[in-house]
Amino acid sequence: MRFGLFQTAQWPEGTDQHEQYHNAIEQSVLADELGYDAVWMTEHHFTRHSITSDSLALLSHLAARTERIRLGTAVSVLPFHDPVRLAESTALVDHLSEGRLDVGIGRGYQWSEYHGFGLRLDEGSDRFEEVLDVLLRSWQANEPFAHDGKYFRYDAAFPQPRPLQQPHPPLWYATGSDAGLRRCAENGWGVMLPQATPPSTVADTIQRFGTQLQAVGIPSTAGRTVLARGMYCAPTDDEAVDTYVPAYRDTLQLAAQVSAPPTPVDGGAPRNPFQVDDPSALRDGIVCGNPDSCAAALQTLADAGADYVIFFVNLGGMQHDAVMQSLRLFADEVMPRFAS
Amino acid sequence: MRFGLFQTAQWPEGTDQHEQYHNAIEQSVLADELGYDAVWMTEHHFTRHSITSDSLALLSHLAARTERIRLGTAVSVLPFHDPVRLAESTALVDHLSEGRLDVGIGRGYQWSEYHGFGLRLDEGSDRFEEVLDVLLRSWQANEPFAHDGKYFRYDAAFPQPRPLQQPHPPLWYATGSDAGLRRCAENGWGVMLPQATPPSTVADTIQRFGTQLQAVGIPSTAGRTVLARGMYCAPTDDEAVDTYVPAYRDTLQLAAQVSAPPTPVDGGAPRNPFQVDDPSALRDGIVCGNPDSCAAALQTLADAGADYVIFFVNLGGMQHDAVMQSLRLFADEVMPRFAS
Repeated sequence: MRFGLFQTAQWPEGTDQHEQYHNAIEQSVLADELGYDAVWMTEHHFTRHSITSDSLALLSHLAARTERIRLGTAVSVLPFHDPVRLAESTALVDHLSEGRLDVGIGRGYQWSEYHGFGLRLDEGSDRFEEVLDVLLRSWQANEPFAHDGKYFRYDAAFPQPRPLQQPHPPLWYATGSDAGLRRCAENGWGVMLPQATPPSTVADTIQRFGTQLQAVGIPSTAGRTVLARGMYCAPTDDEAVDTYVPAYRDTLQLAAQVSAPPTPVDGGAPRNPFQVDDPSALRDGIVCGNPDSCAAALQTLADAGADYVIFFVNLGGMQHDAVMQSLRLFADEVMPRFAS
Repeated sequence: MRFGLFQTAQWPEGTDQHEQYHNAIEQSVLADELGYDAVWMTEHHFTRHSITSDSLALLSHLAARTERIRLGTAVSVLPFHDPVRLAESTALVDHLSEGRLDVGIGRGYQWSEYHGFGLRLDEGSDRFEEVLDVLLRSWQANEPFAHDGKYFRYDAAFPQPRPLQQPHPPLWYATGSDAGLRRCAENGWGVMLPQATPPSTVADTIQRFGTQLQAVGIPSTAGRTVLARGMYCAPTDDEAVDTYVPAYRDTLQLAAQVSAPPTPVDGGAPRNPFQVDDPSALRDGIVCGNPDSCAAALQTLADAGADYVIFFVNLGGMQHDAVMQSLRLFADEVMPRFAS
């Protein structure tokens, strides 16, 4: 099983932005030292939910601060990007990281972000498709190309550099629908599984993905999914739950707040990935407890077919030292039980 | 006198992009160690002239690799940027560099870049103004703002983070016109002086800037200009000229090639900053020779009023080792003569 951070920098009332970045970076550097496999960085705009507005600049910085860990975007919100510039930035960070970049892609789900950028949620899918099309073309262009689309026009773009990883950095698509899973299977993309879902949903999604893969002659989902989970590991279950669950609940609430349109008029709102239909099931969606409890939660996910789990550790209300201790304890006591 | 690098990564035929970035970064790290004051990174797109397509990602990386050197964009080509995203990225790199960021701004001059992005050179000024307006507003916003302009629309943008340097990182405007100089004086911006000009032009521009500054009650240009120059320092004049001048001439030729529209129809082409009206005067525009010759060239610039010179050292045809040796020799033998 592989483990990584689903890293972010939140900005709760009363906290300092500079310190939030510092903490997120120190946690990521520690993860590199402790043997975690990856840091995936969120992209968010305009609210306290997260101030990771240029995830590639953060990963470029981490490329210099880390030795071996892979670096992912989780996700690059394609409707908010100029695709040629995104192709340039991702390829450049691929070089600066010596080919350690993974590119997660999605539509975004926060109404406040769309609104801030002057966009409508219901044009997100169209924008996503055009940006992805030009992004893929940009990465692989052997000569200048023209594009005259609904949202973007280029007369002779020839984005440089070419990615170090050829033909492009691994793509991971945030999806759980049959259509999305089929698309991943057919294109060789990984799947970023829906967050905050119970293990039964994880199992169902991975199984459906496996069916789509088999249809294109790929026998297994191994190495092709990544699952994000809240995680906190402490000496006792009580300490873990008392420390982490309130911060996690606050994050869910803030995410819901920034995601919801004030009225349903512009429709088409994607599902908030933090939406927990049954709040009493909140603990089913996280890995939280003493090392044995964390291992048990992970075993349940492993049994569901998950082989790559990334952890949401840096919630706004958490103390930096507590996050660092949790990362160490998990690496010492839990990770070895899942060595592959 | 302050000294820095005017750094880039060119991509001549037969060279490797990955190695070009590696060299540019190693040279920048060395400059930090040797006591240079800054690294200013170009932004270019689509051609071999330079592959520094995301200068802020490069500077974010350098922020982690360097300790004290300031980090500048030279320039951020405003017409190619979404101003809210640029505000976010610059502010984020300002945090990651502990407040070491300088932001150079300009319109760009390469027709091939405008054309690639599907823009017209003659809309560059309009775009520049709108992007600058929103950039300044974004950096200083205390609440979400709306903007409905000619090129950009936001309904409620609230770019985060706020810059670490308040109210925003120092701005440096690439200009030499009276109107541009007056604007810098009135707004407290620095001036990025025109490149590849003879010392007499440098003196004239700085003098005109001084007049504009006096008009707003500022007695001196000290600390308010930066001048870019080709530089190469070797044990002998012959070695320096033989090594550097051919590479410099090639760069001028390539810059001219990518800058020129195929026909003059869309007009409004800004002056190519590398344009040398009299090729025999090429050496007047560079700092190239043995340490004594370099010092003499710098003294001429100092007499012209320049107190901050940044060096274009990493030309495509140059060997990395030669650049490193030149940086060391200059730091050892020339820099101490201009210690302030």
